[in-house]
Amino acid sequence: MNVRQYTSATDRRKALEKETNVPLTNIGTFSLDESAASTRNCENMIGVAQVPMGVAGPLRVIDLHSRTRDTYVPLATTEGALVASVNRGCKAIMESGGAVTNSHSAGASRGPVFRVNNLSESKKLYEFLDTHFTDLKKVTESTSHHLTLKKITSRGVGRYRYARFVYDTGDAMGLNMVTLATDAAAAYIKKETGIACVALSGNFCTDKKPSWQNFVENRGHKAWAEVTVPGRVLKNTLKTTAKSAYETWLAKCMIGSAMSGSMGFNAQYANVLSAIFIATGQDPAHVSECAVGVTTAEVVNGEDLYVSVYLPDLMVGTVGGGTGLATQKEALDILGVAGGHDGKNASALAEIIAAAVLAGELSLLSSLEEGSLAASHKRLARGGSTT
Amino acid sequence: MNVRQYTSATDRRKALEKETNVPLTNIGTFSLDESAASTRNCENMIGVAQVPMGVAGPLRVIDLHSRTRDTYVPLATTEGALVASVNRGCKAIMESGGAVTNSHSAGASRGPVFRVNNLSESKKLYEFLDTHFTDLKKVTESTSHHLTLKKITSRGVGRYRYARFVYDTGDAMGLNMVTLATDAAAAYIKKETGIACVALSGNFCTDKKPSWQNFVENRGHKAWAEVTVPGRVLKNTLKTTAKSAYETWLAKCMIGSAMSGSMGFNAQYANVLSAIFIATGQDPAHVSECAVGVTTAEVVNGEDLYVSVYLPDLMVGTVGGGTGLATQKEALDILGVAGGHDGKNASALAEIIAAAVLAGELSLLSSLEEGSLAASHKRLARGGSTT
Amino acid sequence: MNVRQYTSATDRRKALEKETNVPLTNIGTFSLDESAASTRNCENMIGVAQVPMGVAGPLRVIDLHSRTRDTYVPLATTEGALVASVNRGCKAIMESGGAVTNSHSAGASRGPVFRVNNLSESKKLYEFLDTHFTDLKKVTESTSHHLTLKKITSRGVGRYRYARFVYDTGDAMGLNMVTLATDAAAAYIKKETGIACVALSGNFCTDKKPSWQNFVENRGHKAWAEVTVPGRVLKNTLKTTAKSAYETWLAKCMIGSAMSGSMGFNAQYANVLSAIFIATGQDPAHVSECAVGVTTAEVVNGEDLYVSVYLPDLMVGTVGGGTGLATQKEALDILGVAGGHDGKNASALAEIIAAAVLAGELSLLSSLEEGSLAASHKRLARGGSTT
Amino acid sequence: MNVRQYTSATDRRKALEKETNVPLTNIGTFSLDESAASTRNCENMIGVAQVPMGVAGPLRVIDLHSRTRDTYVPLATTEGALVASVNRGCKAIMESGGAVTNSHSAGASRGPVFRVNNLSESKKLYEFLDTHFTDLKKVTESTSHHLTLKKITSRGVGRYRYARFVYDTGDAMGLNMVTLATDAAAAYIKKETGIACVALSGNFCTDKKPSWQNFVENRGHKAWAEVTVPGRVLKNTLKTTAKSAYETWLAKCMIGSAMSGSMGFNAQYANVLSAIFIATGQDPAHVSECAVGVTTAEVVNGEDLYVSVYLPDLMVGTVGGGTGLATQKEALDILGVAGGHDGKNASALAEIIAAAVLAGELSLLSSLEEGSLAASHKRLARGGSTT
Repeated sequence: MNVRQYTSATDRRKALEKETNVPLTNIGTFSLDESAASTRNCENMIGVAQVPMGVAGPLRVIDLHSRTRDTYVPLATTEGALVASVNRGCKAIMESGGAVTNSHSAGASRGPVFRVNNLSESKKLYEFLDTHFTDLKKVTESTSHHLTLKKITSRGVGRYRYARFVYDTGDAMGLNMVTLATDAAAAYIKKETGIACVALSGNFCTDKKPSWQNFVENRGHKAWAEVTVPGRVLKNTLKTTAKSAYETWLAKCMIGSAMSGSMGFNAQYANVLSAIFIATGQDPAHVSECAVGVTTAEVVNGEDLYVSVYLPDLMVGTVGGGTGLATQKEALDILGVAGGHDGKNASALAEIIAAAVLAGELSLLSSLEEGSLAASHKRLARGGSTT
Repeated sequence: MNVRQYTSATDRRKALEKETNVPLTNIGTFSLDESAASTRNCENMIGVAQVPMGVAGPLRVIDLHSRTRDTYVPLATTEGALVASVNRGCKAIMESGGAVTNSHSAGASRGPVFRVNNLSESKKLYEFLDTHFTDLKKVTESTSHHLTLKKITSRGVGRYRYARFVYDTGDAMGLNMVTLATDAAAAYIKKETGIACVALSGNFCTDKKPSWQNFVENRGHKAWAEVTVPGRVLKNTLKTTAKSAYETWLAKCMIGSAMSGSMGFNAQYANVLSAIFIATGQDPAHVSECAVGVTTAEVVNGEDLYVSVYLPDLMVGTVGGGTGLATQKEALDILGVAGGHDGKNASALAEIIAAAVLAGELSLLSSLEEGSLAASHKRLARGGSTT
Repeated sequence: MNVRQYTSATDRRKALEKETNVPLTNIGTFSLDESAASTRNCENMIGVAQVPMGVAGPLRVIDLHSRTRDTYVPLATTEGALVASVNRGCKAIMESGGAVTNSHSAGASRGPVFRVNNLSESKKLYEFLDTHFTDLKKVTESTSHHLTLKKITSRGVGRYRYARFVYDTGDAMGLNMVTLATDAAAAYIKKETGIACVALSGNFCTDKKPSWQNFVENRGHKAWAEVTVPGRVLKNTLKTTAKSAYETWLAKCMIGSAMSGSMGFNAQYANVLSAIFIATGQDPAHVSECAVGVTTAEVVNGEDLYVSVYLPDLMVGTVGGGTGLATQKEALDILGVAGGHDGKNASALAEIIAAAVLAGELSLLSSLEEGSLAASHKRLARGGSTT
Repeated sequence: MNVRQYTSATDRRKALEKETNVPLTNIGTFSLDESAASTRNCENMIGVAQVPMGVAGPLRVIDLHSRTRDTYVPLATTEGALVASVNRGCKAIMESGGAVTNSHSAGASRGPVFRVNNLSESKKLYEFLDTHFTDLKKVTESTSHHLTLKKITSRGVGRYRYARFVYDTGDAMGLNMVTLATDAAAAYIKKETGIACVALSGNFCTDKKPSWQNFVENRGHKAWAEVTVPGRVLKNTLKTTAKSAYETWLAKCMIGSAMSGSMGFNAQYANVLSAIFIATGQDPAHVSECAVGVTTAEVVNGEDLYVSVYLPDLMVGTVGGGTGLATQKEALDILGVAGGHDGKNASALAEIIAAAVLAGELSLLSSLEEGSLAASHKRLARGGSTT
């Protein structure tokens, strides 16, 4: 039997059931438009994985122009206590007046590697990329109406030159788009200079690996969120004190990360990001790079707690990829950011995500410090997915 | 309205629909056991995210005892071309006689941080952990029949001591279990020494962050897979040559990773891991740490290509967490590793995952080197999710 | 006794001899101008450390404008075999026609950290730095005739904003200069915006720590050197083959560095840099950041070996600091780059250093591959300071 | 002319003077035993680099057994203000009752890389190293009376296996010794298993590169020092307050290091280490790995400041290498740790270095926080070599 010979998920699933003797009843239960999904999102489709989706919130998100948005945050997860944890953080944020957010579109990048003969030719290519920016802009932008080439940087080592093409891709995460555009650029460079591209992605993008280059130069959107939680909210809702949560932050996110050689000075970005990414049709593989961010905490006014999150590399979008699938589209609708809107929806999504990540940090930093928890039930109900 | 007041996903979803004016028809279509999922996996549940699931394969996996397993690999993804990419790699592996794999159970770790008064007390705690291992083993193992304390290491800095409790958790990924066990250990340490635990997780575990400590000391399972692809398979199936794929590997995975400060010297581990993790009910947030691994490639016998993958930190399990959900359970059944089996199912899963990751590397390294691709269609059909 | 009460090295040394009962005859033997050295280079001076200085060479260095320089390289070291090792590399380079080099002045940086009230003020400071570049240029350049402000970048996290002021400092390494200039900038920013600088160096420079920011954005000079060593030179002078040296490079500098989490994908940059730095009056503490670079190797033409080095962060100068001391000045004179020359001497020094580092790499990569060396004498004579 | 043809430094220097037309009067002035130095420490010797040596102190060092040592710390440097900076820190430490220190001999390591045929053979080598530890101990220890094999760990990736041989080398830093011993081990392994060593150092040692493996597993000695500085000493001697110094530490050493991707969460370890290393005949190239450590700070008792340093990788010795040279030997005599003493001198040196590094941290953290310094003179006199 060859599952690849079938053209519908149903036939393929049935063949697989027969071959493996595994009934795939649940995988076969779904409302997605199979024909669209199997064409655009998943080859050899046999059905779906159903990931439980909960909501946390309401979460109040206030941007730097004082625009306020109260929203529920859809989270798709199989890890008990995560939604409860984020929810508790959302409650504390709401009681503190909301999370203030900011974001900046850093651009989607693709980093091809070129082969040169020697240092002299490497310098020549460096100069070519500099002097032909306008031409390369024309070449890359001819591949799609939805992208703009923002800049090209490059670094040479021996007979290799790594370039980083950075694009504005509007409301799309845009990786496919920028791959095609960079492919056209590579062809143009080959034609003009004779210098060949070895790999369209030379891990210089850097796509789906934790990368200091992404951290330093940013990728996708960069986003921040902050909140000052009054002492009474700390006490009543988060069951902690400013001093205690601060000390947990310092011991865990800063010194603990230093002592373990962790990239990512935070408590649980990965938990919140993966749940929102799956719910809203982002690419969850991007969690590998997006979870690298920095949380700060401070005791202010004696008993209040200031907490902030910084996500330097947030590859998200509201059009394309998995965002058009039925359940994912509904999740984006809950957030009010589905579809294209001149890049504004993607920015809004980035800021909501930052605020949700902030909720997760608040909650976890408040529950860890107790040290000796009496019972798992208590912890699950209060603190969430310990990380 | 407060979505938290509702006890069933249906009622909660309807209330949310009313409040947001967003019809949640698709999120509400599912076959999961709502009551189980909402208790164990997801609070405030409103339904599910449906993630398209495809299969790649058959994939032949051969362990070091020459036990051979031919299996289809379930992949849940919204990124077009990923299943096709892994599938192409599986085909090449099959035509090369199969992937040889190995794995080792490194253990699930939890890394609490303790506060000491000074260097002298820090040394005292260091010695206490050393001399009281048997007691701590008793204390931690009393919290569950499913875990065994394997070792404790600790590192001191100033008035902090970070410890790493490493457990064997059988077929479970085990994070909740080891949290409870370490909580008991912390209480015991407090009682015996008076030294308090500041945070049950001091980022010294290190859970859900890319971490050099995990890379060096390993976490969960460590797994390897290798294959030597004959020249004719490279030519016919992968449309490349040994030399070309090797050069892409070197320029991308090695020198490119060095030049971008990437942690993870590979092509696309994150893509394959996140798709398998979602399909089989693993925690996709773990992709943040598990995607950090090393691929090697070599030209052998003049025209053949040896490729290997090494995953030093693979947090996976076949019982607990999301593995019991209906669609995820079926996916594990496809692999033949669902449920508990003295740790053997988790090990088998780790090796299958390594082989699938190997398929992804083979496929991507074969498609990137062409540099200038003629058309997106061609690439999507052949190479997959460029990373 | 208090050694601080003395004004001459002689008196201080004598007092110390008396107090410690340690005769300091050798430390007291030197020809340096004590009064200048004790004022500019070293407080509480009691004499000198005499570090043996040898020369390697002649080394042929050819820049991208085909200007050729044959020079001896002064190396101050206490580690037997290092000079011999570099010397062997110089010989191989000479027999291969010389090392081709390139360099680029990236600029000396200082990275102060500012305290802001919130994300809104953080953005305000970001914009201020952008819109007031001309003013900041005036302010900083008023502190010295020898520097030019090239650019300012900044990154915000929570209530901190880290800025990186990058300057051209001509032939000087320039760290003191840029500290004073940045101090003036911080005062100006305080006056104009009310935002205070917490620390003039917020480890965002990054000075004297291995740092990915320095690696990605470069610091001081960046320099490259390359050479293609013919098969017969490999055989006769380096006692190796292209294939063997290549395999050593791959196993050690690339995969080995990946497996150990090393920053710096090279064989022995630190050895060569520290010896040249001490000989020529550079700050040897900078070795901590400057030794982070990437070596590449390739087999070309079947039996020749191409090797290159890339130093992205080379903090060196030919005026100021220790460069004016008598022995150090003579070492710079041997290289023909002592004193100021519109930045050209510092660039030339950077390229000579790159070529010397290349010599060290060639030599070590040729001696390690044998695996089982017969005797230490043999190794010391041939390969040098194994690293 | 060929400088290599000469056998004495004088003749070689004269020939070089003639060829380069550079008078090398100062390089030629020294009291070192030329014949010993040119044989053991430096080939092609032409004389010496004279590096100004000052002393800071007295510094009070108290080990965990309450043994107190008051000592002057020799520092060889060309960077004005460094000695003054450390001196100020020593004064503050003295006024605070002394620095408490601890150390542990982690052992000198050598990390060869072996080539295996496949994963199966890789596992075989893993098991061989485990089961033949006693034999390997015998083989390695037969190469020198001064070393003991402590442990062997290994990690496999593809067809490579990296091993880490860790030795106790008593009072010697021991790198040459462990190279010879590991060479013998490699020969034995080859003979017994047929598996060849590709490179005696596979960057898995990791020698002279900043390395997370060294950070996690430690190398040479690991050492700590701590002090609690009373508020009045902060005010009178360090001209700061606990709060201010603490905030500088947090913004610079922790958050600033995180934001710049720095390895090494400290203020100026590299400055102090390189000055002591040169003064006492250590290998200054080791600064590249040894400067990676973690400083902590805390406000205690309302107005006092606790500061600690942690150096996980300190490759130092009191015999061998440059420690026998005349000026370096005198510097070790000042510290009272010259020569061999069952490993106790090297441990004492490690703890003194940690205390001196602590002095440097104290001083710099106290001087940076002012932000806008009035004049360079003031800063140089007070704070030292800003880093």
